[in-house]
Amino acid sequence: MKGMKRRNIFTILLSAVFAVIFTSCNQPQSKITTIESDPLPSWNEGASKQSIIDFVTKSVDSTNAGFVPLADRIACFDNDGTLWAEKPLPFQLYFIIDRIKAMAPQHPGWKTKQPFKGILEGDLKTALAGGEKALLEIAMATHAGMTTDEFDKSVKEWMATATHPKTGKHYNEMVYQPMLELLDYLRANGYKTFIVSGGGIDFMRVWAEKAYGIPPYHVIGSSNNAKFDTTLRPPAIIKLAEFNFNDDKLAKPLGIHQHIGKRPVFTGGNSDGDYGMMLYTSTGTGPRFGLYVHHTDSLREYFYDREPGLARLNKGLDDAAKYHWLIVDMKTDWNKIYPFDK
Amino acid sequence: MKGMKRRNIFTILLSAVFAVIFTSCNQPQSKITTIESDPLPSWNEGASKQSIIDFVTKSVDSTNAGFVPLADRIACFDNDGTLWAEKPLPFQLYFIIDRIKAMAPQHPGWKTKQPFKGILEGDLKTALAGGEKALLEIAMATHAGMTTDEFDKSVKEWMATATHPKTGKHYNEMVYQPMLELLDYLRANGYKTFIVSGGGIDFMRVWAEKAYGIPPYHVIGSSNNAKFDTTLRPPAIIKLAEFNFNDDKLAKPLGIHQHIGKRPVFTGGNSDGDYGMMLYTSTGTGPRFGLYVHHTDSLREYFYDREPGLARLNKGLDDAAKYHWLIVDMKTDWNKIYPFDK
Repeated sequence: MKGMKRRNIFTILLSAVFAVIFTSCNQPQSKITTIESDPLPSWNEGASKQSIIDFVTKSVDSTNAGFVPLADRIACFDNDGTLWAEKPLPFQLYFIIDRIKAMAPQHPGWKTKQPFKGILEGDLKTALAGGEKALLEIAMATHAGMTTDEFDKSVKEWMATATHPKTGKHYNEMVYQPMLELLDYLRANGYKTFIVSGGGIDFMRVWAEKAYGIPPYHVIGSSNNAKFDTTLRPPAIIKLAEFNFNDDKLAKPLGIHQHIGKRPVFTGGNSDGDYGMMLYTSTGTGPRFGLYVHHTDSLREYFYDREPGLARLNKGLDDAAKYHWLIVDMKTDWNKIYPFDK
Repeated sequence: MKGMKRRNIFTILLSAVFAVIFTSCNQPQSKITTIESDPLPSWNEGASKQSIIDFVTKSVDSTNAGFVPLADRIACFDNDGTLWAEKPLPFQLYFIIDRIKAMAPQHPGWKTKQPFKGILEGDLKTALAGGEKALLEIAMATHAGMTTDEFDKSVKEWMATATHPKTGKHYNEMVYQPMLELLDYLRANGYKTFIVSGGGIDFMRVWAEKAYGIPPYHVIGSSNNAKFDTTLRPPAIIKLAEFNFNDDKLAKPLGIHQHIGKRPVFTGGNSDGDYGMMLYTSTGTGPRFGLYVHHTDSLREYFYDREPGLARLNKGLDDAAKYHWLIVDMKTDWNKIYPFDK
């Protein structure tokens, strides 16, 4: 009996140990946690959040009609007003203004010459009275005539020091927390996430990996022509004062095709500048998802949509039902705007 | 004593069981297999193979001076003559020739008009007597005036049916087995592998993922301008008969910058057309690796290097020592050329 009892204890103990082996080796503990936890905690419960989760859940289920093969899980997002804020002025314009001021001592002629004079005197209205030509001039002065490494350094330094006029935060802190969660959620489900922005491709690449987890080779944007200068030591790429590609409006699908070579299945934007890529996405065959971030929160962020201007959302609102685009209402759908919000 | 002995057996058994837990859960069995197995079996033992393995091994060891952070592990490869064969003619030229013949019934005027007449009569010499202009004309006739989907379909159909004049194999079977292993080896060590080729970006993307495991968004090549046509149902991208970017020679670093936004740490090429990107890679700071595939095997493949022509390797051989480029001798370094070789 004693021996019997011992064998029993022995067997029970061994079973317990093997149970530990089984549990610790074969059960995907982390997966269970992921399924049970909320992938989009800054999104309020409701139709918007549910439609995103429904689409993504179906897209990874090979038995579902909404399944999307892994190789086709391409998601594209505009940047200004979609992943980070863009008011009162697009952030890259603050970079240009600050750089003009920083570079002014080396350019004494700027003091008396528009649009530089206006920028240096804080009179943006006069500076930009010259319209697109004036804007191009200050853009090229700060984005050309240097190596790509030198340009990267100027962006990095600016990002570490400059702050937003309203929040006092660094610009790369003013990213939308709910969109960060959406990017993570998509990537956790096998999606490759791309930025497709009218902003400068070289400007965004400097900080996008840290801010969004999007590496430089998944950033698509506007660009200058460039030159590989083999006379430099070491040979380097020089940014030229010539426009190469304006990644906006109907050109966004072309930027997508040039860089990705596939029609996206998931796209997010916030203005009519994104209409082209929303259309390109949503008119493809098979499951597609398009969302517009609608700036409805004048207290926590900014309110703007149909009024004419840089970030107008008019045609997109009109055609949302037709193309089954989700209109994300920032005020009611998001319980948090920025990561630093409480 | 008996109880003591039993406790001892008990302890030993438990230790053994816990050792099993430890081994099965914590030891990366698959990693051990990887380390013990040869990642480059089609490469003969020797200095070339060893230098690649040494570089990669150091690059993933954070305690080594040759360490490369994960985010910087960018590897770029030319395609024609580097990843697949390019003789007697570049394979994309066979596509053009075959497409001209297939499209001829819809273009009765081609029968009497060069360069089309020469192509249709099998007289390539006369067809291409018009030089670059003639080549551009047949390239545009087969690469423009259709949607990207229609173009993809034409490449896919051609690849499934056309065969190489010497081997009788499909062109996508004529990839270099040792380079496939190198691509896999780099990816297994955290490298992102890109194609950087003078070939057509849309042409390569159709078959590169299956042939090399390189997805469309990691393919860089030459391109036409394009147009997003919203009048089509569904809206689609049309390839225009206008050249956009010639991804060759000193433009290769620009293609790399535009698509990747980082200086590569590992680059492979086979001709002076790759010299620019080899230079761009090897003159960066920190660990860098450049290799030239040297076509030295006239029996199993083709012998060519310094003679003037499309795939000339002259300057690259001259400067290999200066930039520490590995010259891969196909004849002695590779025990297998194509996957179908025995």
